[in-house]
Amino acid sequence: STRYSTKIKTPTNAGTAHEVSNKQRIFFTDPVSPGSIFFLPNGTKIFNKLLQFMKLQQQHKYGFQEVVTPLIYRKSLWEQSGHWDNYKDDMFRVMGSDTSKEEYGLKPMNCPGHCVIFKRFDRSYNELPVRLSDFSPLHRNEASGALSGLTRVRKFHQDDGHIFCAPGQVEEEIIKCLKLVDLCYTKIFPLSESLQSAAYSLELSTRPDNFIGDIEIWNHAEDVLKDILMKSGKEWEINEGDGAFYGPKIDIKVSDKSGKSHQIATIQLDFQLPERFDLRYKDRDNTYKRPIMIHRAVFGSLERFLAMLIDRNEGKWPFWLNPRQAMIIPVNTKQAAQVDASRKLLSYLRHEGDPNDDMPVPLNSFHFNVDIDERAEPVGYRIKDALTKDYSYLIIIGDKEVESSKYAVRTRQDRALEHLTSQEIFAKFSDLERRYV
Amino acid sequence: STRYSTKIKTPTNAGTAHEVSNKQRIFFTDPVSPGSIFFLPNGTKIFNKLLQFMKLQQQHKYGFQEVVTPLIYRKSLWEQSGHWDNYKDDMFRVMGSDTSKEEYGLKPMNCPGHCVIFKRFDRSYNELPVRLSDFSPLHRNEASGALSGLTRVRKFHQDDGHIFCAPGQVEEEIIKCLKLVDLCYTKIFPLSESLQSAAYSLELSTRPDNFIGDIEIWNHAEDVLKDILMKSGKEWEINEGDGAFYGPKIDIKVSDKSGKSHQIATIQLDFQLPERFDLRYKDRDNTYKRPIMIHRAVFGSLERFLAMLIDRNEGKWPFWLNPRQAMIIPVNTKQAAQVDASRKLLSYLRHEGDPNDDMPVPLNSFHFNVDIDERAEPVGYRIKDALTKDYSYLIIIGDKEVESSKYAVRTRQDRALEHLTSQEIFAKFSDLERRYV
Ligand SMILES: [Zn+2]
Ligand SMILES: [Zn+2]
Repeated sequence: STRYSTKIKTPTNAGTAHEVSNKQRIFFTDPVSPGSIFFLPNGTKIFNKLLQFMKLQQQHKYGFQEVVTPLIYRKSLWEQSGHWDNYKDDMFRVMGSDTSKEEYGLKPMNCPGHCVIFKRFDRSYNELPVRLSDFSPLHRNEASGALSGLTRVRKFHQDDGHIFCAPGQVEEEIIKCLKLVDLCYTKIFPLSESLQSAAYSLELSTRPDNFIGDIEIWNHAEDVLKDILMKSGKEWEINEGDGAFYGPKIDIKVSDKSGKSHQIATIQLDFQLPERFDLRYKDRDNTYKRPIMIHRAVFGSLERFLAMLIDRNEGKWPFWLNPRQAMIIPVNTKQAAQVDASRKLLSYLRHEGDPNDDMPVPLNSFHFNVDIDERAEPVGYRIKDALTKDYSYLIIIGDKEVESSKYAVRTRQDRALEHLTSQEIFAKFSDLERRYV
Repeated sequence: STRYSTKIKTPTNAGTAHEVSNKQRIFFTDPVSPGSIFFLPNGTKIFNKLLQFMKLQQQHKYGFQEVVTPLIYRKSLWEQSGHWDNYKDDMFRVMGSDTSKEEYGLKPMNCPGHCVIFKRFDRSYNELPVRLSDFSPLHRNEASGALSGLTRVRKFHQDDGHIFCAPGQVEEEIIKCLKLVDLCYTKIFPLSESLQSAAYSLELSTRPDNFIGDIEIWNHAEDVLKDILMKSGKEWEINEGDGAFYGPKIDIKVSDKSGKSHQIATIQLDFQLPERFDLRYKDRDNTYKRPIMIHRAVFGSLERFLAMLIDRNEGKWPFWLNPRQAMIIPVNTKQAAQVDASRKLLSYLRHEGDPNDDMPVPLNSFHFNVDIDERAEPVGYRIKDALTKDYSYLIIIGDKEVESSKYAVRTRQDRALEHLTSQEIFAKFSDLERRYV
């Protein structure tokens, strides 16, 4: 993660997130833990899908290896990393009941822990780059007055990653980071104001006056970054002298509906932590060299990213993320055959196991978030209600559908009915999820 | 989780876990965070697979809903739950930099947070049972002298779950909990000493002298539990008066290789927390009733469960859990065609995306942990080496295999070769993972 980030501007429209959350039971906060989100089952479904998406991309397309790391570290580690001097007031302190013993810091970022992992083994040039990803909960002690919904929190999760590489590998690594950013923000999560405007903008921040390290390494790195940005064909601008003292960075920003710009992803070079932790690898020539560290996050804070998604979609989730993917509506709830067929389809699409048998639910299986509305209300009323509740699909089952075993499927947006068998619906839904649509 | 658990006996054989871990790079510990595990990439793969398995069973076979909850809670919550009086010394305290402000407790268990969720909404009889699952990291301040590998830790993860139900639902809920236990310990993770002995044993602990609550509720609950155990056809015994003061419980125990018995799963009734949090639901007759709370975990601590798996398998993981699923070995590494075919198969079985295109890695896709040994060493040497490293499968590619596009596949245990196309290998591996074999 960004190491000593300044407060990040967040969507102004916290109202939308609250409204959608109340309607869909996504999350809540409570004074028992100010600034920590309680994700309800529907919110947890969305949260887990976002994680799943990112883990798959990082591990199977971009060469990351996931690790699970401690949450509390001795004060001495934070002194070594420099956080104790620079960041102490934003950190939570942890103590055992014997408060005279050494205290711990509850981690606000994963970087020092990843340095410990890198340092643990003798590293050779031929295993670089080492790319570690981590989804640990992080804590920062924001002032209680500033806390707000999903956007100003004390506990959050980052799709965090650190790359330890040789100086000559920086270019390729940054290009790959930007590819993943592009995949996310143009293809899977278009957050921008309109299809006309760019999905996101890029900002390069360069060497500040109080920089540390070798000026030639800085110059080279900045040249590499500029060159990459130039060739990217994307909008970008430069903030001269606005980099962190330990390295230049690229921030990725999107605009919310009101046109306000927000930082989401970040890619940050670090010449300092490898020094502080005395990280090294054995090069081809048998001498020890210092790796460069790259901090990067694509979603950034998952909580904030979720807020931006809601700001944009107002609860109209794409199918794959929707905790309410389809509502099944038997036309006449007094017709046992219609209700039976509806319940069978419900169980088929949920792909539920029987608690009484000893067959495990298979790994990597699809299970759709489908509900049934069997209330003795007019069908038109129930259709309208399901639309109000933002279901992606409605599946309507009358006598004709029961007889043909082909059910009437319509989307949220379009009244047009498609008649599909249960297998066809399952295949259609699987295809949508598989492709993140 | 068990609320005020006494220290749990753990496998004595920490040596095996360390040896396997060193060989396979599964985890390590470090003085920067005593008692917190660093899971390395291979360990994280196993950890995530175990989570995936349990989440699928709980959510799609046993009706649980996953939630993500805060890690730090105000002291006042722990006072309300009773932990501050009974458990304070085992908890970590958390403070902001302004230590004069109210302090927090780093959670040692999820129960109070789940009570907050239950209480947040008006609950009706027709939404019971509410079954919440949670995989939060938990912290308990074990004495530093007692810390050991995966088994005596300060940070751990439970496959934790809490069921809030009406008194009349207890029987069915307990039966279902035991079904999931049975699925795990007889079918997916047989941990017992031999196939002859029972996979696990059950112990019922009944009302102690210092019980709280209504004696008739206790009597009824104990009768229900005895009746379930009687009908289960499993070995069980009774520990009279050994229950917690807030409710009776069933502990599930397995024996390690040395024959020593260890508690793994637990199912625990709780008549007290619903009182302390004033939990209630509106019954059919429009009056408010108190739900019963059931704490249950099947793996228990994932860290300890992993230690027990290693104690049992000594690093010979079943295919689906193995971070080293297959090793590809070109017979003659000077033959470009053999090396090419090997690399192609590697990429096919890993199912890796191209970082340069904009096709996302699909949701729920299979990606096998396959490596290649291209070293210019004799094929016999490389086969032996892969076996030493505990790969589940070896795939050997010589001229004949290149020509036929059918590759020679053998298991860790058996030299017999099966000739399969890459598609057939992928299908075979997918089938093994899908079935947790
Ligand atoms: Zn970082
Ligand atoms: Zn509990």
